[in-house]
Amino acid sequence: MTTPLTTHLPHEKMPYLLRRGEGKRYLFGNQVATIIADAASTGQMLSAVVIGGAKGESFPLHTHTAAYESIYVLEGRVQFIIGSESYMLLPGDYAHIVPGTAHAYQMLGHRNRFISYSIGADLTAIYPLLGEVHEPIEYLPYSSHRVTDQQRQLVEQQTDIRFAKEDTIFPQQYELVSNAELPSAAISYVLESGEGVRLLTGDQVHRLLATQATTDGEYIVVASDGPKGDEIISHYHEHHTETFFCTQGHMTMWANEQEIKLFPGDFLHVPAGTVHSYRLEDHFTKVVGVLASGLFEPFFRLLGDPYEHYMFPSEPGAARIDRLMEHIDQLDLKIVGPPNAHAK
Amino acid sequence: MTTPLTTHLPHEKMPYLLRRGEGKRYLFGNQVATIIADAASTGQMLSAVVIGGAKGESFPLHTHTAAYESIYVLEGRVQFIIGSESYMLLPGDYAHIVPGTAHAYQMLGHRNRFISYSIGADLTAIYPLLGEVHEPIEYLPYSSHRVTDQQRQLVEQQTDIRFAKEDTIFPQQYELVSNAELPSAAISYVLESGEGVRLLTGDQVHRLLATQATTDGEYIVVASDGPKGDEIISHYHEHHTETFFCTQGHMTMWANEQEIKLFPGDFLHVPAGTVHSYRLEDHFTKVVGVLASGLFEPFFRLLGDPYEHYMFPSEPGAARIDRLMEHIDQLDLKIVGPPNAHAK
Repeated sequence: MTTPLTTHLPHEKMPYLLRRGEGKRYLFGNQVATIIADAASTGQMLSAVVIGGAKGESFPLHTHTAAYESIYVLEGRVQFIIGSESYMLLPGDYAHIVPGTAHAYQMLGHRNRFISYSIGADLTAIYPLLGEVHEPIEYLPYSSHRVTDQQRQLVEQQTDIRFAKEDTIFPQQYELVSNAELPSAAISYVLESGEGVRLLTGDQVHRLLATQATTDGEYIVVASDGPKGDEIISHYHEHHTETFFCTQGHMTMWANEQEIKLFPGDFLHVPAGTVHSYRLEDHFTKVVGVLASGLFEPFFRLLGDPYEHYMFPSEPGAARIDRLMEHIDQLDLKIVGPPNAHAK
Repeated sequence: MTTPLTTHLPHEKMPYLLRRGEGKRYLFGNQVATIIADAASTGQMLSAVVIGGAKGESFPLHTHTAAYESIYVLEGRVQFIIGSESYMLLPGDYAHIVPGTAHAYQMLGHRNRFISYSIGADLTAIYPLLGEVHEPIEYLPYSSHRVTDQQRQLVEQQTDIRFAKEDTIFPQQYELVSNAELPSAAISYVLESGEGVRLLTGDQVHRLLATQATTDGEYIVVASDGPKGDEIISHYHEHHTETFFCTQGHMTMWANEQEIKLFPGDFLHVPAGTVHSYRLEDHFTKVVGVLASGLFEPFFRLLGDPYEHYMFPSEPGAARIDRLMEHIDQLDLKIVGPPNAHAK
């Protein structure tokens, strides 16, 4: 019954684990796109790519017709043009880009990494067309690779991207991200690291970075942090896909009876039907989740209470299991057993 | 012969390992000072404290008479006043503060952490006087602790700190750190993440962030990164102390026949006489070392060649063992054996 968890990008929808750096890698300019989720591996639910690159590397102004893009910065300093704004995004900052908003980026740190999720169209299809297969995990000291006009045309023909006609000019000026509020409609926005709709459940703070309201119900983004704690209940979902990308500390996860330790950069794909649970293991552990569709948002709002602070409490607050159980029939949540129910 | 490695801050000079968060912790305001090295535990060689805190927390303008301070930012956004300049330091940025330079900081991210090393006087003695013993690892959601004038006076009497008479006013304006050059004298400066005197040895890039020239020979700071690689030779030093603070990825270290895995935030103290070696284990592993005194600087310059790039190469460059062996008698280096000589 217990088969080892897949540890490569599969071509069918199934649970899988990718360690930091694993996935399909493409070099374009001196950036490496590491595809960690695509349409085939998630059953069209979502896609994700980690982009790493050197100072001065950029991507020109473009729009998507169908794709929502969610960007979470992992390292460095990345200037983003989003609509008419120019921002410097730093680690933990989030950018939400809806279809039709022109955007571009330029890397300004000596080492830069961000994760880009796309929902509604598979933006990871861009990179095999723009770049070349790249064996090393990291980008290069120096790269002579250049994207050609022909490649850009091909990408426009085959993927959900339209490049701006004019050359991209990155303003000398930029704002550090300070926004703290999510809009109530599906428009583009940025959020400062630590911001989001904060909900305390026990000893963990969940932050909604994108909600059904900002994604037309397509997905939600949840950044959660907490101290070393207890395992959550073992459960599965019938409809929605979950993904876990660890950014700080480390955590233990269980997925279909496999026990896995996630460290920063590790990614776990948990489609519907996969029994799973987790336990945070470090004094400060952080994990970014993208859940598609967005139907599970009420779970976080029922279980958690709004939290005015930013750091989790030294003593756990209440988790509103009562409220959760009252509405369990309306949630895509099947509880399998108490913590450690998977242990044999 | 093999005794387990000490895993708390000892009161005598000896090798020890502190996992992230371990050490002596003090709360002041809503900042936690975690002392990971002090005069007693290092035989007066150096001291080190990790400071973590919430947005808006600050430390007023002050100077040191004897202490050099080396600051390496781990997380968040921290505004520093250094002399007449106002900077925003980001993760990986470095500040070098010599005796007599007035400085102050203010935390502007929602979560901020930096490590402060002091050499020449033990600045960690400040925190037991300013703060209260703190049991949790992290700072608090909200803290009512306030430092009193009486405490500040006591700190001035008993430690190497003099507070400015006037109130500290943090300018609204600040520069992001872009400096790339070390001065050739012991003056205060900052360095952008990734900068420093870069030396390639094999597949690792060593960056000198502070040199004998900038510390009057008291110590050097070396930030090193590389891919998963081979173990270095097993060796010890007769005179200088080394410290290893892992900031990214993970590495295996051997110290006095103990094998240890270092993850981000873990700290290893390796005084003279301790046989040690290491191996980088992650695709991108980074470790910050402070070595006191600074006499080992020629080792890095002999073994490594100046490196114009910022990312380590995909194929290892040469390590100039020939040059090293030619000058081995002038280095504080005792080679014990090839890699794995410690294995039994």
